[in-house]
Amino acid sequence: MSKSPEELHPIKAFGWAARDSSGVLSPFKFSRRDTGDEDVKFKVLFCGICHSDLHSIKNEWGFSRYPLVPGHEIVGVVINVGCKVKRFKVGDKVGVGCMIGACHSCENCKNDLENYCPKLIFTYNATYYDHTRTYGGYSDVMVASERYVVLMPENLPLDAAAPLLCAGITVYSPMKYYGLCHPNLHLGVVGLGGLGHMAVKFGKAFGMKVTVISTSPTKEKEAIEHLGADSFLISRNPDQMQAAINTLDGIIDTVSAVHPLLPLIGLLKSHGKLIVIGVPEKPLELPVFPLLMGRKLAAGSFIGGMKETQEMIDFAGKHNITADVEIIPMDYVNTAMERLAKADVKFRFVIDIAKNLDYCLASKQSCLS
Amino acid sequence: MSKSPEELHPIKAFGWAARDSSGVLSPFKFSRRDTGDEDVKFKVLFCGICHSDLHSIKNEWGFSRYPLVPGHEIVGVVINVGCKVKRFKVGDKVGVGCMIGACHSCENCKNDLENYCPKLIFTYNATYYDHTRTYGGYSDVMVASERYVVLMPENLPLDAAAPLLCAGITVYSPMKYYGLCHPNLHLGVVGLGGLGHMAVKFGKAFGMKVTVISTSPTKEKEAIEHLGADSFLISRNPDQMQAAINTLDGIIDTVSAVHPLLPLIGLLKSHGKLIVIGVPEKPLELPVFPLLMGRKLAAGSFIGGMKETQEMIDFAGKHNITADVEIIPMDYVNTAMERLAKADVKFRFVIDIAKNLDYCLASKQSCLS
Repeated sequence: MSKSPEELHPIKAFGWAARDSSGVLSPFKFSRRDTGDEDVKFKVLFCGICHSDLHSIKNEWGFSRYPLVPGHEIVGVVINVGCKVKRFKVGDKVGVGCMIGACHSCENCKNDLENYCPKLIFTYNATYYDHTRTYGGYSDVMVASERYVVLMPENLPLDAAAPLLCAGITVYSPMKYYGLCHPNLHLGVVGLGGLGHMAVKFGKAFGMKVTVISTSPTKEKEAIEHLGADSFLISRNPDQMQAAINTLDGIIDTVSAVHPLLPLIGLLKSHGKLIVIGVPEKPLELPVFPLLMGRKLAAGSFIGGMKETQEMIDFAGKHNITADVEIIPMDYVNTAMERLAKADVKFRFVIDIAKNLDYCLASKQSCLS
Repeated sequence: MSKSPEELHPIKAFGWAARDSSGVLSPFKFSRRDTGDEDVKFKVLFCGICHSDLHSIKNEWGFSRYPLVPGHEIVGVVINVGCKVKRFKVGDKVGVGCMIGACHSCENCKNDLENYCPKLIFTYNATYYDHTRTYGGYSDVMVASERYVVLMPENLPLDAAAPLLCAGITVYSPMKYYGLCHPNLHLGVVGLGGLGHMAVKFGKAFGMKVTVISTSPTKEKEAIEHLGADSFLISRNPDQMQAAINTLDGIIDTVSAVHPLLPLIGLLKSHGKLIVIGVPEKPLELPVFPLLMGRKLAAGSFIGGMKETQEMIDFAGKHNITADVEIIPMDYVNTAMERLAKADVKFRFVIDIAKNLDYCLASKQSCLS
């Protein structure tokens, strides 16, 4: 009989897992593989809560397998490295994002675009090369291949930097690919949540003029005074929208609900680019005529490759970009998920993993059972 | 009292016009302006019938004004040039496409993209700088500013070259802009009509592999044996479509009816580009998830600027590219429109303008009344 994952994987790990589509997270014991030659093992200190975590624990995408340990904005401190590891040493502050493996032989992998590899292995709710399940960062320890580990900048606080690993790269990558990263360009950001507030920060760091477009008038003050956006449009205000027609070079659209694209396409100048990074459940209506008459495009983008993720983190370090976070203890996570579902967070929850799990360990409480 | 257009415009002209939304074309006398300093005046020899002509004569876009003389694939021989004209002389073979004016001061005009100028003046059914109506190429004589006139290559037959001025540039411009013009790339062409068959020809001239995607199995032979396409997919055959998933670098989608984009996006490799140049009356459904997961884009494009139109014509001359045409006399035009509405043409009607109108003149028939 073949060995079970727990036997194959000798490193005891503990975290919080969802057991079914109720999505309720509870303490969970599992194991991780020993540090391979090319692996980096690190103590997890913080893990951001991404909206994908919420979708996954509730099986809203239909492919969740339980128990499911979510978390793909994982930061911590290296405690062990394999003999072939070159870029990391014990004590380094590191991070792991949405993926931990790919085929490394396809065109995308060869071009440092592992994120578009058809054999991409997600950090959680996936199957690793060795056929074992992958478990995310709501856990005390992480082991990952060096290729999928990034070095965190010394100057950034680890907790607020964690969301860069998913939210950050998700907005940064399309901004770079579509050339929405130059001074004198005018960027629109639709939706001011975890992704949107990062897009504003990167847009300003690139020297762009940034306009936030939102359904909520209440977010204007936050957008302009706190995040530094240059202007704010209420998408439900036809006068405001009309006055802003043909003013934007590009839009990062972070809205994951079904929403009309026509007004957004109208805001674009000719040759403008509408980049959709939220995933509505149903197709969006694409009006063709305005797309043609302005040679505009609507495009998707999905996280970023590892080389670009490190580049983004270095850029964030240089420009002192982090997420606005609310730090929570592990045992607050179920409440945090409820609040996230209502968009009641500014702008990202980050779990203080080490504090809470260390406490569990020290007190030998039931959270490890 | 201000002068009427006929008084302002001393050049007697005659052609065929629609008088109402029945779209029936009948003989029509009008006038054109005298040759201005920067103008080129030419005897019209041939004019292609574009699908836009059909939409316009029937007022299907809602902004037709009658009488309406259609035609924007106009070729002929120069009979007069203004004193400031530099690029043309009497006797040159020339053409005029979809536009005859723009603001010449906006960003698009400065970048030779007059086609995206908000003040673009269409060749027909528009208002010229002098507030007179513009009349198209279903007429015996044309006067246009030098900027909007292209020199036709000596080696191309004028009749078959006429459709380059709209159908040709409409496919060529997005192929260039989106980089779908290089050997080793694989192009999909959806719909094999006036636009589609030009896209196949340009694709092959660029050295690309070309796959035609059509609902009509009957077009396979034509596509492969006659036009030189490399392969053919029946879009309603799920097995064929499934087998071709992730194989195309880009698609030129010429279909102007509402149609599903999901299967087309599926045919694209990662980072593939779906270029829509047909104008369906309703929005198309844009599936977001596959767009994201492959960093794919859906974009529009609309004819091309004058500099690029000349470049396209020169390229066509060099590679001996013309449209496949059925030459018709002027008085066949109403029947041709009926056939065009049923897509019963391979692949473009071209009116032999001079022959028919000369005959009318010579015989002093009622067609001039």
